[in-house]
Amino acid sequence: SRTLRLAVIPGDGIGQEVVAEGLKVLTAVLPSDVKLETAEYDLGARRYHATGETLSDETLASLKEHDAILLGAIGDPSVPSGVLERGLLLKLRFAFDHYVNLRPGKLLPGAKSPLAGHQPDSASPTRPEIDFVVVREGTEGPYVGNGGSLRTGTAQEVATEVSLNTAFGIERVVRDAFRRAAARPRKKLTLVHKNNVLVHAGHLWARIFQQVAAEYPEVSTDYLHVDAATIFFVTQPERFDVIVTDNLFGDILTDLAAAVTGGIGLAASGNINPSGAYPSMFEPVHGSAPDIAGQGKADPTATVLSVAMLLEHLGYAAEAARVEAAVAADLAERGPDARSTSQVGDALAARVSG
Amino acid sequence: SRTLRLAVIPGDGIGQEVVAEGLKVLTAVLPSDVKLETAEYDLGARRYHATGETLSDETLASLKEHDAILLGAIGDPSVPSGVLERGLLLKLRFAFDHYVNLRPGKLLPGAKSPLAGHQPDSASPTRPEIDFVVVREGTEGPYVGNGGSLRTGTAQEVATEVSLNTAFGIERVVRDAFRRAAARPRKKLTLVHKNNVLVHAGHLWARIFQQVAAEYPEVSTDYLHVDAATIFFVTQPERFDVIVTDNLFGDILTDLAAAVTGGIGLAASGNINPSGAYPSMFEPVHGSAPDIAGQGKADPTATVLSVAMLLEHLGYAAEAARVEAAVAADLAERGPDARSTSQVGDALAARVSG
Ligand SMILES: CC(C)[C@H](C(=O)O)[C@@H](O)C(=O)O
Ligand SMILES: CC(C)[C@H](C(=O)O)[C@@H](O)C(=O)O
Repeated sequence: SRTLRLAVIPGDGIGQEVVAEGLKVLTAVLPSDVKLETAEYDLGARRYHATGETLSDETLASLKEHDAILLGAIGDPSVPSGVLERGLLLKLRFAFDHYVNLRPGKLLPGAKSPLAGHQPDSASPTRPEIDFVVVREGTEGPYVGNGGSLRTGTAQEVATEVSLNTAFGIERVVRDAFRRAAARPRKKLTLVHKNNVLVHAGHLWARIFQQVAAEYPEVSTDYLHVDAATIFFVTQPERFDVIVTDNLFGDILTDLAAAVTGGIGLAASGNINPSGAYPSMFEPVHGSAPDIAGQGKADPTATVLSVAMLLEHLGYAAEAARVEAAVAADLAERGPDARSTSQVGDALAARVSG
Repeated sequence: SRTLRLAVIPGDGIGQEVVAEGLKVLTAVLPSDVKLETAEYDLGARRYHATGETLSDETLASLKEHDAILLGAIGDPSVPSGVLERGLLLKLRFAFDHYVNLRPGKLLPGAKSPLAGHQPDSASPTRPEIDFVVVREGTEGPYVGNGGSLRTGTAQEVATEVSLNTAFGIERVVRDAFRRAAARPRKKLTLVHKNNVLVHAGHLWARIFQQVAAEYPEVSTDYLHVDAATIFFVTQPERFDVIVTDNLFGDILTDLAAAVTGGIGLAASGNINPSGAYPSMFEPVHGSAPDIAGQGKADPTATVLSVAMLLEHLGYAAEAARVEAAVAADLAERGPDARSTSQVGDALAARVSG
């Protein structure tokens, strides 16, 4: 019998509620010979206020002893902006070398898009299929935390933010994106950057991209500036297959991707260390939504889809597919009545075990 | 009698064609006592190939002797990415201290939005009005050209891009945005940044924003991370009134704004030096579109709307309003048949003089 050692970080706000449903579905879908061992970590705003800890070396070392991490959401208005983001969320991504930040942009049957051309009940019954995945670099770029300020707080203040980009870091994520593109039916990879303005970083991305492309003649490639890419996201999202891009552009594009594929309530993500040297971490793209926390109003679907990504990553492809199918079926049959967080979780758990 | 000394940079690709129509409409709308003096500048890809010049000090000095600049589009695939952008377009914006890059996001009656909730013929006949304006900082941030690379071209390459932000530079653009917000009916200003990750620049923006806000108690304010802002652009664009943001975020958001308010064929912009020390420059947001250049297929409307912004900036408010009304009427009555670039220009010129 196998064991799945899962670290769970429910976090703040709705994080607690949605993670509970994610675990419900995970338990329901796992083969009976797999033993699920979970260890819960109390991290986030409450812990920070109580102890001053965002993420200690001890906690990091303990988290490392797991096969994967499931995270709910981190953040609360009571904590100054940046403290938990830099001290916990990004610290985890950097410490565990999560260089592939994987974010699917898939309009599931039944999901509602705000785009007129993608209405389920539009004149044309076969809406164009939106099914792409963004491979966002996760350990470099403007996210490295290399910045500072001079004459802080005065009228003479100067503040900098440095984007750091390495051939090493870009090559590994570009390679990962080509592998994913080669394994998909359409075999298409789009590089997104802003190489007409950020010429140094942009030309490095372009050079590495071209270099790796030579090894994947079966993958067709193109390039878009990030500003132009946002236009295609709303006018022709079906044109995309795999997108590879830098950390900041990926952050922006994947929220937009979520918006056009059914909303942030459905957007899943994986912070992946492909080498396996560190556990990968799966989390919904949405935040802690303190305004609706504790009321059973949060949609746990993004967390459940993140669980599907976790299963896929750990080699449980059939189980991952069952979770995704359950979500698609649930979305297609959703009535007008609001259901509670646990009702959605129960429905999905029933579907995957049924 | 007054004189309007206009420098004209048609540039590359469709730039030539759309600028001709912009001038046609400008000539038609100007009061008869205003003498229009235009000086055309041959800049862009052709000039670069012929002479190696992107923008010389002499040309800059000559451009400076005008009341305003009208630019078509710059760029051609034959020129390496970045050369004309950095050496001409951005050089102009920096040299003439165009710190307010103004970009309206207005869904004109008759314009088509890709958003389902904003269809002219949707079930609800009164679609929510999208009418915001983005005040994009134009002379700082990641656009300053402060970057470099080490071990260029090797597997050990490291490339940097530095975002430079000053209290001085932020305050003047934030102040401009508050002034604009205070003058609009809804009096709402949204700051967009990413201050949970880019903490140094982000906190400087937030501090200055709060400081200036205290002088404008009548303006209501809020803050959005750039990723969240993209979501609202497609789910609830009517929530925005004035947006102020950094150079790069503004670049991305305004292409997205163009997409949701009728497309890049309608998106106008002004690169403004509010002090008047330098001429301001007006240009469509779209590029040179070499694939359709010279065929009379380009829609000159974005250039015509940029002419309206130019008129507004130079104090011809009534004329600006007439141009905008002409465009709205033209859009509302557009039939299914494609019209040529000059047909659209002729129609608009007839409307403003009629
Ligand atoms: C909370 C924040 C640090 C984070 C990011 O910017 O990466 C979030 O927006 C995300 O996309 O996961
Ligand atoms: C061409 C490029 C330098 C420019 C920019 O990034 O500002 C363009 O995208 C724009 O928005 O005017």
